[in-house]
Amino acid sequence: MTDAPVNPLRSALFTDLYELTMAQAYLDEGLCAPAAFELFFRKLPDCRNYVLAAGLGDVLDYLEHLRFTDDDLDYLRRQELFDDALLAQLKSLRFTGDVDAVPEGTIVFPNEPLVRVVAPMIESQIVETLVLNQVHFQSVVASKAARVVTAAASRIVVDFGSRRAHGTDAALKVARASYLAGAVGTSNVLAGKVYDMPIFGTMAHSFVQVHDHEIDAFAAFAERYPETTLLVDTWDTLDGVRNVIRLSRRLGERFRVQAIRLDSGDMGELARQSRALLDEAGLTEVKIFASGGLDEYEVERLVASGAPTDAFGVGTRMVVSRDAPDLDMAYKLVEYAGTGRRKTSEGKESYPGRKQVFRTIDSGVMVGDVIALADEQLPGQPLLVPVMRGGKRLPAGNATLEQARETARRQIEALPPELRALPRAAAPYRVDISPALRRAAESIAGG
Amino acid sequence: MTDAPVNPLRSALFTDLYELTMAQAYLDEGLCAPAAFELFFRKLPDCRNYVLAAGLGDVLDYLEHLRFTDDDLDYLRRQELFDDALLAQLKSLRFTGDVDAVPEGTIVFPNEPLVRVVAPMIESQIVETLVLNQVHFQSVVASKAARVVTAAASRIVVDFGSRRAHGTDAALKVARASYLAGAVGTSNVLAGKVYDMPIFGTMAHSFVQVHDHEIDAFAAFAERYPETTLLVDTWDTLDGVRNVIRLSRRLGERFRVQAIRLDSGDMGELARQSRALLDEAGLTEVKIFASGGLDEYEVERLVASGAPTDAFGVGTRMVVSRDAPDLDMAYKLVEYAGTGRRKTSEGKESYPGRKQVFRTIDSGVMVGDVIALADEQLPGQPLLVPVMRGGKRLPAGNATLEQARETARRQIEALPPELRALPRAAAPYRVDISPALRRAAESIAGG
Repeated sequence: MTDAPVNPLRSALFTDLYELTMAQAYLDEGLCAPAAFELFFRKLPDCRNYVLAAGLGDVLDYLEHLRFTDDDLDYLRRQELFDDALLAQLKSLRFTGDVDAVPEGTIVFPNEPLVRVVAPMIESQIVETLVLNQVHFQSVVASKAARVVTAAASRIVVDFGSRRAHGTDAALKVARASYLAGAVGTSNVLAGKVYDMPIFGTMAHSFVQVHDHEIDAFAAFAERYPETTLLVDTWDTLDGVRNVIRLSRRLGERFRVQAIRLDSGDMGELARQSRALLDEAGLTEVKIFASGGLDEYEVERLVASGAPTDAFGVGTRMVVSRDAPDLDMAYKLVEYAGTGRRKTSEGKESYPGRKQVFRTIDSGVMVGDVIALADEQLPGQPLLVPVMRGGKRLPAGNATLEQARETARRQIEALPPELRALPRAAAPYRVDISPALRRAAESIAGG
Repeated sequence: MTDAPVNPLRSALFTDLYELTMAQAYLDEGLCAPAAFELFFRKLPDCRNYVLAAGLGDVLDYLEHLRFTDDDLDYLRRQELFDDALLAQLKSLRFTGDVDAVPEGTIVFPNEPLVRVVAPMIESQIVETLVLNQVHFQSVVASKAARVVTAAASRIVVDFGSRRAHGTDAALKVARASYLAGAVGTSNVLAGKVYDMPIFGTMAHSFVQVHDHEIDAFAAFAERYPETTLLVDTWDTLDGVRNVIRLSRRLGERFRVQAIRLDSGDMGELARQSRALLDEAGLTEVKIFASGGLDEYEVERLVASGAPTDAFGVGTRMVVSRDAPDLDMAYKLVEYAGTGRRKTSEGKESYPGRKQVFRTIDSGVMVGDVIALADEQLPGQPLLVPVMRGGKRLPAGNATLEQARETARRQIEALPPELRALPRAAAPYRVDISPALRRAAESIAGG
């Protein structure tokens, strides 16, 4: 690494090499007409009933700032793959196109476009890598976090996963996407600053370990942070709880510790035993915070078993979305110079033309979507809205994180209960293809 | 996002809040003596026989540049959690400690320290989140990539996964870690620039799609890039191969296309049929490049079946390390003020004291490791070496990517064959705990 690492979210070189060799070939042939690309995923993982869209803000931010620096162009020149005409074009390149997208926090299903980019061929092509990278991961983790929040059944969920997220960008995006999906905040301080979102944290095992006696650690920490959460499992969980009780006797009226945290062992059993000890000592107001190896399945199990856990710190399994760490998401050309385009690769067929999704809501519950051509007028709520025109963000492209969180809350609330639940629903959500779109697809054959 | 997003690799705020509340409590108590923390993982995932260590360079880079900006301190002050004494200390804080670590590209096993940080308590504590974040993910993906390279049995492997890596930092680190593990390069242009590593790329489906006839796309691309790879599966794979053959007849002597790329369908069968068509047409020199949904299992299956695939572009499943997207890795206090420390949490016990790993090699093959106290002198090669002293990098902390790649190559070559193979080895690699370390652990009880 050099002294000042490039922020990849601001680098036009964060792209696959073939985007640039294609740009060269497009220029050679004069293929500079507007092209429409759409971002969608082909199918749901077995362990997902829906996807929660996220990442649009970073995409628009990137498009607004897209430019090749002189240093970038020097690097490209040295590859001996590009001619001066292309390099000159890249030097002055700005994103001048239009973007339509579903707002962050929208529930989406297979083949539904999350984002449509319409711009001169080279512009719309070279942004593929970053657009996919951001929307894919943020949607993966928002979808996972939404399940954790659902499983917690109104108990608090906090993102504790920065240390095992896949790199620093992922850690920040996990913090944001999990908050968007209903978590109450994150342990990551930088995320708190960058996204203006709540941060949480108490103590780690090391703090207890540097003291010869656990109760000394608890006393010192509660002296500075009276309303803190004390971590009780460094040596023996129930002894730790007894030390909290001892501290409460020592401090009397001054004892204001809000919670204990369990981080290992049989969480349900330890929560019950800890609760009993605390209640017996009159500490009925002290909550139990559970962490360590949790995911939506374990959270649901704890909740269903009646374990007295009041809050969950969720890390690794949520932040890597362990049971579904990726989606079969693609950014595909659907129209060039006004004509629909498709591919028919085995198992990877795509629908041509600019599309819109119309969603029908009945008594507050989503009952079915229709994917149609963008110029069709069908019943239901259109999901894609204009967010950028001529390279400039529109108001709808400036939703705040709080607004996106509210969108997600409403959307998840409108899901049919069997789709909101963790198990795979017996029947998938109904998504139809409009007759006009079907005809358009049939009318285009490659060759 | 603000106009100039912070690069989290250069932000002291990329930390969990509890690191800072603990720092406050340490300062309150005057707990400022040197502390030793070690980074290790507790167990191997079922589908891994070893871990390839990576990420050290980013850790050292971060430690060298660690500082809180005025803006960071303003943010912290606004949290109303920290007193002026701590904020003043953070303002002047630099990392002044020592780091010992296994070189990047070293094979490691459970409980073996990958990195040891020794520094005044606050310094060694607050770096936990970034140190774990970088070494964890980079080691996860280097280990996965090593398996893909092994499965490819000397055929070429290229990282194609930037679009589905978990964020931008992950994409860059995947490019680097997979190269370290033996891939020949990446499609990510920024990774090429930042890490001075080879970049690869040809064409995407969109390039074919904008042409009315596939052969026109091939002709245009080969005109600009005569030695290119042509993507043949946009509409029908074997028709695509026939169009390559048609182009070869049209161009005659000027035909220098090096390869075709298959990206969908039954890869083994399509490779065989494509090979037959190419050979029949006299194009025996044209290679077959396979991509699309590959991982080490699929690559091994293709190789074992004798499918005529000469190179592999590996993306999603490798870059998210789908079968093992995380390791149970931790950064634990092992010594404070010269005294060994441990935790005994159920299932998460740790060994106290600064440690070294001694590895025995017999006839070029690794036969066993011993984890010992750092001041023991045991037979075998010590794996941890000094890489930073007093906050300054030592020469061993400046290994280049090429050197790390060579280390990895030699280490993987020295693995017993049953550990290098993809299936779980019948017996794990032998790792003993030295009697002195065992006694040290037994002598320390928490309480």
